Amino acid sequence: MFWKSIFDEKRKEQEFASRRAQLAKQMMEDHLDAVVLFNRINIIYYAGLAHQQTERPIALVIPKEGSLMSFIPRLEADHLQEYADIEAIIYSEYPGDAHPMEVLTKALKSRGFNRLGVDADGYGSYWGYSGPRLSECLPASEIISLLPAIRKQRAIKSPWEIENLRLSTIFGNLAHQMLVEEAELGCYEIEVGQRATTRSSRIVVQSLAGIYQLQDWGVTPTHTGLKSGPQTAYPHPMAAGKQLEPGDLLVTWATADINGYRSELERTLVMGEPTDDQRYYFEVAKMAQEVAFEALGPGVLCREIDEKVQQFFRDRDCGQYVRHHTGHSFGLEIHESPFLDTGEQEMLQPGMVVSVEPGLYVPGVGGFRPSDTVLITEDGADIMTYFPRELDDLIIQ
Amino acid sequence: MFWKSIFDEKRKEQEFASRRAQLAKQMMEDHLDAVVLFNRINIIYYAGLAHQQTERPIALVIPKEGSLMSFIPRLEADHLQEYADIEAIIYSEYPGDAHPMEVLTKALKSRGFNRLGVDADGYGSYWGYSGPRLSECLPASEIISLLPAIRKQRAIKSPWEIENLRLSTIFGNLAHQMLVEEAELGCYEIEVGQRATTRSSRIVVQSLAGIYQLQDWGVTPTHTGLKSGPQTAYPHPMAAGKQLEPGDLLVTWATADINGYRSELERTLVMGEPTDDQRYYFEVAKMAQEVAFEALGPGVLCREIDEKVQQFFRDRDCGQYVRHHTGHSFGLEIHESPFLDTGEQEMLQPGMVVSVEPGLYVPGVGGFRPSDTVLITEDGADIMTYFPRELDDLIIQ
Repeated sequence: MFWKSIFDEKRKEQEFASRRAQLAKQMMEDHLDAVVLFNRINIIYYAGLAHQQTERPIALVIPKEGSLMSFIPRLEADHLQEYADIEAIIYSEYPGDAHPMEVLTKALKSRGFNRLGVDADGYGSYWGYSGPRLSECLPASEIISLLPAIRKQRAIKSPWEIENLRLSTIFGNLAHQMLVEEAELGCYEIEVGQRATTRSSRIVVQSLAGIYQLQDWGVTPTHTGLKSGPQTAYPHPMAAGKQLEPGDLLVTWATADINGYRSELERTLVMGEPTDDQRYYFEVAKMAQEVAFEALGPGVLCREIDEKVQQFFRDRDCGQYVRHHTGHSFGLEIHESPFLDTGEQEMLQPGMVVSVEPGLYVPGVGGFRPSDTVLITEDGADIMTYFPRELDDLIIQ
Repeated sequence: MFWKSIFDEKRKEQEFASRRAQLAKQMMEDHLDAVVLFNRINIIYYAGLAHQQTERPIALVIPKEGSLMSFIPRLEADHLQEYADIEAIIYSEYPGDAHPMEVLTKALKSRGFNRLGVDADGYGSYWGYSGPRLSECLPASEIISLLPAIRKQRAIKSPWEIENLRLSTIFGNLAHQMLVEEAELGCYEIEVGQRATTRSSRIVVQSLAGIYQLQDWGVTPTHTGLKSGPQTAYPHPMAAGKQLEPGDLLVTWATADINGYRSELERTLVMGEPTDDQRYYFEVAKMAQEVAFEALGPGVLCREIDEKVQQFFRDRDCGQYVRHHTGHSFGLEIHESPFLDTGEQEMLQPGMVVSVEPGLYVPGVGGFRPSDTVLITEDGADIMTYFPRELDDLIIQ
């Protein structure tokens, strides 16, 4: 029952508690009375509380001593009660008769919290919300940003997080295989992705019947798709109505959501026999990925990875086809810091999980961007994704 | 060729130009040199430029005089060039060798822009990004928030926007019909939604072959789904693995994305013969919706609508089952201001588009939340969505 333990409620609760214990050290150092988190993902990270983000602000309050508090609209109150034993500061609605930030301010003041660590200075301006910054509500308090510390903590994945990502690579691989099966000439590219997403999502839910749960509204258990043809020369194209044609280059992606964690897998495929140009740039991008795989390990500076990859591309006269850095961290978010980027100051450490995805974007030919999920280990790197990387295995006949 | 004109590039360009002309009046009033927009949706609204949001900041600069400027990473440069004739301030990458905000600051200074209107004071902290506020980069400049003015402008939909929403209601209705067809006993609720989304998305792309385009990555041409059973008593539940059972209450949603505009349609259905409780609360929620329909019109205060609905619920001893306000505006975003909420100060005006969705959440019974898209007209209100509202038409046998 290896995988089942990922979903064990007790283990999850221990995980969240141990994260808060680490945050508590930072609170001690900074002499904070409490931490207030507004970011949906940080609230999941430190308390496992998932909610659908709307115009209604939500926050998690972690006091130096005593139990957690959740600042929520009435809308979320029953739901919270059902799955967590946690004190709730409940406001009626947004805009509501009193602004929600007034309710939060009053609650923080009444508890004597003066020195506060935050991940953001208020709720921003999501979906029609507007409101004062927390520092405007509490002019006499000291508000300290813990965003850098929180990001550093989130960058090092725990064994539980790595197990989640590992299961994600398995279902992501399945989703990608189904994408390849659905990629038939004449299909709209968006329907290929949707069909494979629907089929593979069903398998996830069926495999994990009774324990599988999503952390957000509107997401699906798996997500896979592709872009095809000349528009793949743009890293992030938006078109939707293209049908697959013979000779098309396909730039694909596939992932599965396990407790909110999503692995990254991307491949470049060809519909039919590749041209010489397609073969050439495919091989250069693949070799660049191997340059990065070789270089990854604990103690290496993130920027060195990107420098080596960029140098490799320049040596092959491909510098003009580069549009982005080599990779990024991820976990609960699709991109997280640190980045494999020439401007990144951080060092790779065991437990970090990064994408390795050097890409070439050749006008008139297309985009070449293999991406894999790589775990930094004590003595090197573990490439967690395993879909075939050779062009001969990526031709759709 | 009525619908085709929605996708006509010239008409779209005129639409964006007329929006900028309205913003220019505000710029005159506030004596601004330029407006800088960081929000992805505002950039689409004023220039039609869609991009996938990442750790790389993007901004649109609208000068008092002269042509538009786009602040973008190298990643987006070719793509922008392909679909817009617009000056680009291009930075290499994030974090990159120089922080992107330095590049933006330099560009704004070199053009002599001192008094700036903004929708946000910088790019926030999306996906691992961090950076200074714009006001920190330009301490000698005056930075004025135009967020309230921009939201007021966006709240009044133009004829083009209303046509987009109208086409969205047609495909949204189709998606919802397909959802009902797919809702069979034993199916996982998530697969019912995904199947209907896949089928109806294909119809959208096929119907609009060659002209249909999405405005964001990861979204689908239609989106429909449902929640079922006791968990519908929570407005925003997260579970995914439930299978449809006899007697289940279904709370559904369906929409279609037309140039980024999405209508709202939600229904409450029953798998099999409804119980007396189900019939009772269904009727109360439906009557509450009619109370709102009757009251909607130009010159009416938003809060009056919610007050009437809440009073109606209290009169029927259902006040304790209310969890949220009566509705919200929407268009390019799923929720926008103003809200149909007792705390909302705004007045309804012709061209506003709101959801009307009073809901009851009865523990042990479930959720009852019909939602329709309503346009405020010169002399009343036009209910744009038309899926059947009577319980007898919402029983799945």
